[in-house]
Amino acid sequence: MSEPRLTYRERARDGRARTGELTTRRGVVRTPAFMPVGTQGTVKGLLPGEVAALGADMILANTYHLALRPGAEVVAGLGGLHRFMGWEGPILTDSGGFQVFSLAALRKVDEEGVSFRSHLDGSLLRLTPEEAVRAQEHLGSDVMMMLDECPPAGAGRDYLERSLSRDARWAQRALAARSPQGGALMGIVQGGVHADLRRRSVELLTDLDMDGYALGGLSVGEAKEAMMETIAATVPLLPADRPVYLMGVGEPADLVACVGLGVDMFDCVLPTRMARNGTLLTARGRLNLRNARFARDPEPVEEGCGCPTCQTYSRAYLRHLFMARELLAYRLNTVHNLYYILNLMAGLRRAIREGRYQAFARQVMSGLAGDQGEEAA
Amino acid sequence: MSEPRLTYRERARDGRARTGELTTRRGVVRTPAFMPVGTQGTVKGLLPGEVAALGADMILANTYHLALRPGAEVVAGLGGLHRFMGWEGPILTDSGGFQVFSLAALRKVDEEGVSFRSHLDGSLLRLTPEEAVRAQEHLGSDVMMMLDECPPAGAGRDYLERSLSRDARWAQRALAARSPQGGALMGIVQGGVHADLRRRSVELLTDLDMDGYALGGLSVGEAKEAMMETIAATVPLLPADRPVYLMGVGEPADLVACVGLGVDMFDCVLPTRMARNGTLLTARGRLNLRNARFARDPEPVEEGCGCPTCQTYSRAYLRHLFMARELLAYRLNTVHNLYYILNLMAGLRRAIREGRYQAFARQVMSGLAGDQGEEAA
Repeated sequence: MSEPRLTYRERARDGRARTGELTTRRGVVRTPAFMPVGTQGTVKGLLPGEVAALGADMILANTYHLALRPGAEVVAGLGGLHRFMGWEGPILTDSGGFQVFSLAALRKVDEEGVSFRSHLDGSLLRLTPEEAVRAQEHLGSDVMMMLDECPPAGAGRDYLERSLSRDARWAQRALAARSPQGGALMGIVQGGVHADLRRRSVELLTDLDMDGYALGGLSVGEAKEAMMETIAATVPLLPADRPVYLMGVGEPADLVACVGLGVDMFDCVLPTRMARNGTLLTARGRLNLRNARFARDPEPVEEGCGCPTCQTYSRAYLRHLFMARELLAYRLNTVHNLYYILNLMAGLRRAIREGRYQAFARQVMSGLAGDQGEEAA
Repeated sequence: MSEPRLTYRERARDGRARTGELTTRRGVVRTPAFMPVGTQGTVKGLLPGEVAALGADMILANTYHLALRPGAEVVAGLGGLHRFMGWEGPILTDSGGFQVFSLAALRKVDEEGVSFRSHLDGSLLRLTPEEAVRAQEHLGSDVMMMLDECPPAGAGRDYLERSLSRDARWAQRALAARSPQGGALMGIVQGGVHADLRRRSVELLTDLDMDGYALGGLSVGEAKEAMMETIAATVPLLPADRPVYLMGVGEPADLVACVGLGVDMFDCVLPTRMARNGTLLTARGRLNLRNARFARDPEPVEEGCGCPTCQTYSRAYLRHLFMARELLAYRLNTVHNLYYILNLMAGLRRAIREGRYQAFARQVMSGLAGDQGEEAA
């Protein structure tokens, strides 16, 4: 047996919520963890040191985008993604599959893999489980994701069942393709909102003893209740000594709820994208800088917030920058929103350690419920 | 006599080049100085602390832009521009005149002032010498500029003569309009490329004993040689105990040459705008990130450059960010270009102190002449 590439150590548990440490080859990640998204090798507008200072231990990078531009081999030739972008901590990469299934035109899946056209130049490309691992290894990923199919919306049971079975074969191929120096490799549990299919997917993947398990195919349009029920039913089926990663979820209320269901890792573009759209996250809900009432408002975005933006700048200044389309708007807003989310995760970890997850969750939820009545971006 | 609002103290002279200190009510500016431009209350993409760390002692803000959005009174109500944008050092503001004469539609000048339409919403506005001072005082400017006319391109001698005479009356009105707590007020010498008209303008303005003198109406399309001759002829006419400011000049070679003619202060959007266009300044000329040869180039923009961008990032990464239109591209490029210019100014100050301005200038010029053959942005 080789050295494990990823180890999860639980430090405390409170109901189904748990807190612990995920050890990667590039350092420790405190869980539950939120990974800021650095799609193209940058968390938009921020320097790596700033992202770390806001409380992020690990970031996510998108293999699809980087493989198309500048190219995974190009990044490899420049010493890998860590060196390329100047981030020294752990990086989780997705397989590229999600983008192929959502962004790319003319995708076609078969047993071998998926064919698609680049959203950049329309060129015909092919992604296989082996190629996804190869690209992620070129990037120097610490935690890789297997290639899976993202089934089309409204796919029926039969489709989902065939798909998740093929996913399991792809998982096996991904494991076989991984080089001895490769990073950890996580499986992705599919099965839509069908508890029995999720169970089947878990069985197939856990048989392969992967480094961790993600819940895929959620937060893609299904009802929130169905999503939560699926998570609640699936997490207990997974081995307790492996991290559980819920892909693409980042609404504050969802983070709190899903941590309560035992999820350890999250990523989402929500805080960073909203920031660029002028929407700021606060304990009392969202604040939209387009609102004219902030034009002369000398207060910080959030009273008592410890982020660098709130330390120095007024709502009036942030609104001015945003209305004037100034670059600094996106940067200062991103700093605040990432801080908000990362600080929320720190609060959850603390609450779990202190056995008061329920009280903390109630408090966050009731603040968010007293929403400031702002529109989402 | 009240306390002087601006004092210039010469520390060393080498030929006509000089180095010294400009003391404002918000601190000392080492001259020759380059002021980064923060048009809308932000040096695009950077935080004030970063601009200062790159070596800037003073920045410029544009009254026209800030008066239209968010409004000079709004900024005043929020504690002034320094507090609004978080810059604690001195701020020089222009009068708004240049933008009225270049950006605004339907401008019309008369003895009283200038009427124009906002470039933002087309509303009809009026700018007078008094209003320009009032707006700059609302912003909390440390060094204000008088309102002057920017004569239309190709204006003849007669037009220029009438215009500069009116400018002198406007200067007097500006001085009269300034409040006791107001910042320094600089006059603007006009007269096109006519040495005798420049002399006349200097006489009229120096009679008013202003806090400093700017050279206006240059770098607006006239031949480079005519510009240099005009500067060479005009600077010696100005009082040696007042700072000389050349507005809107920022080409590295021009900065070096104009410092040699005795200019103390400069501002220009060139380094910041070029940065956002993917063009980087180096001692060997410009480097255009669009050039495909940088795609796999692991070298920094400039070998030995002390800027934070060159400390961490490769040309390949900067090119990637720029081609992917990432926010961080504009930021990292701006850091490099501002550092380049501010470091050039520091080099000029040192060379003058050490009596080797000529040798330094020759060295810079010969480096720039061996241009890397890149296109301008």
